[in-house]
Amino acid sequence: MYDGIVQELIDEFGRLPGIGPKSAQRIAFHILQTPSFDVKRLAELLTEVRERVRFCEICGNVAEQERCAICRDPRRNPALICVVEDAKDVAAIERTREFRGLYHVLGGAISPIAGVGPDDLRIAQLMTRLADGTVQEVILATNPNLEGEATASYLSRLLVSMQITLSRLASGLPVGGDLEYADEVTLGRAFEGRRVL
Amino acid sequence: MYDGIVQELIDEFGRLPGIGPKSAQRIAFHILQTPSFDVKRLAELLTEVRERVRFCEICGNVAEQERCAICRDPRRNPALICVVEDAKDVAAIERTREFRGLYHVLGGAISPIAGVGPDDLRIAQLMTRLADGTVQEVILATNPNLEGEATASYLSRLLVSMQITLSRLASGLPVGGDLEYADEVTLGRAFEGRRVL
Repeated sequence: MYDGIVQELIDEFGRLPGIGPKSAQRIAFHILQTPSFDVKRLAELLTEVRERVRFCEICGNVAEQERCAICRDPRRNPALICVVEDAKDVAAIERTREFRGLYHVLGGAISPIAGVGPDDLRIAQLMTRLADGTVQEVILATNPNLEGEATASYLSRLLVSMQITLSRLASGLPVGGDLEYADEVTLGRAFEGRRVL
Repeated sequence: MYDGIVQELIDEFGRLPGIGPKSAQRIAFHILQTPSFDVKRLAELLTEVRERVRFCEICGNVAEQERCAICRDPRRNPALICVVEDAKDVAAIERTREFRGLYHVLGGAISPIAGVGPDDLRIAQLMTRLADGTVQEVILATNPNLEGEATASYLSRLLVSMQITLSRLASGLPVGGDLEYADEVTLGRAFEGRRVL
């Protein structure tokens, strides 16, 4: 539709997650009208991020060194490990400022449909971390959906024989949400997990 | 939230139009997991597009040479000019394959609120193109909204004394649309513009 290279850029943007052809076109035209300097900065950042950022050798979180900022922090409690599916989940939990332990990023969840089995996740690395007896509690913070629940239940069967407390994040009504609009599964979980006042 | 450079990339993506903080994060993580080669390609394309692509010296459409592919095409009818706000509109009209004339991209529409006046648009260049008498019809294809209508009416007052046919795209019901869901202005326009069968 456009002269070659503009269409190429639109196609490249269209390949990014959550960007449809219309957004891709809008972004490409925005780039055409952005000062050269800023576009260069974005281009450099892309290359730099891809070259410099890797995954922490301990927990699998994003890192610019061999170990991520959380694993390097001596103030974090090494007796507590929170197991999540994705590095994005680490960021979400960090924002709550509720958790002062370490993380373990699985890199996904068990999903027979997507062809992801336990061997595709960083489960062996988790077992290695748990072997020396430092860890006292493992919080299974996989997503509260089919794949996340399957993964949590797989891990709990794997870890049940070890001297480690296992826990799972509470399911229930979102804070600020409206009971009327909650789906029945969430509402059911909220009843199950009700707390005595 | 993240180690410096990842957050920088998220911020840069968040500056692009239509990308919120959540999408920016998802895209940045996608980049981290995309093969280096592909990321490099995107980075190069960004720089290349910004360096190579310019705006056609005649019509203002995007171009890789001094003149765009449409202005260079000898099969296009030079007696017919379609005036649009934006280069994206050229692409939209080209997709219809209905129009075989040339274009003139204004680079926006008159909008007192956004501080855009006639002098900020490529109107002087349009007048120059019309001066030699080649052009017989000008189609005012600015958007059917407040700014677009204001721009079209400004241009029609400017061009009315010239020996040129002026036209405006038809307003009416979208094809495939549902009469019931049409807003009253559109429906009113559809009545006004009704055609005898």
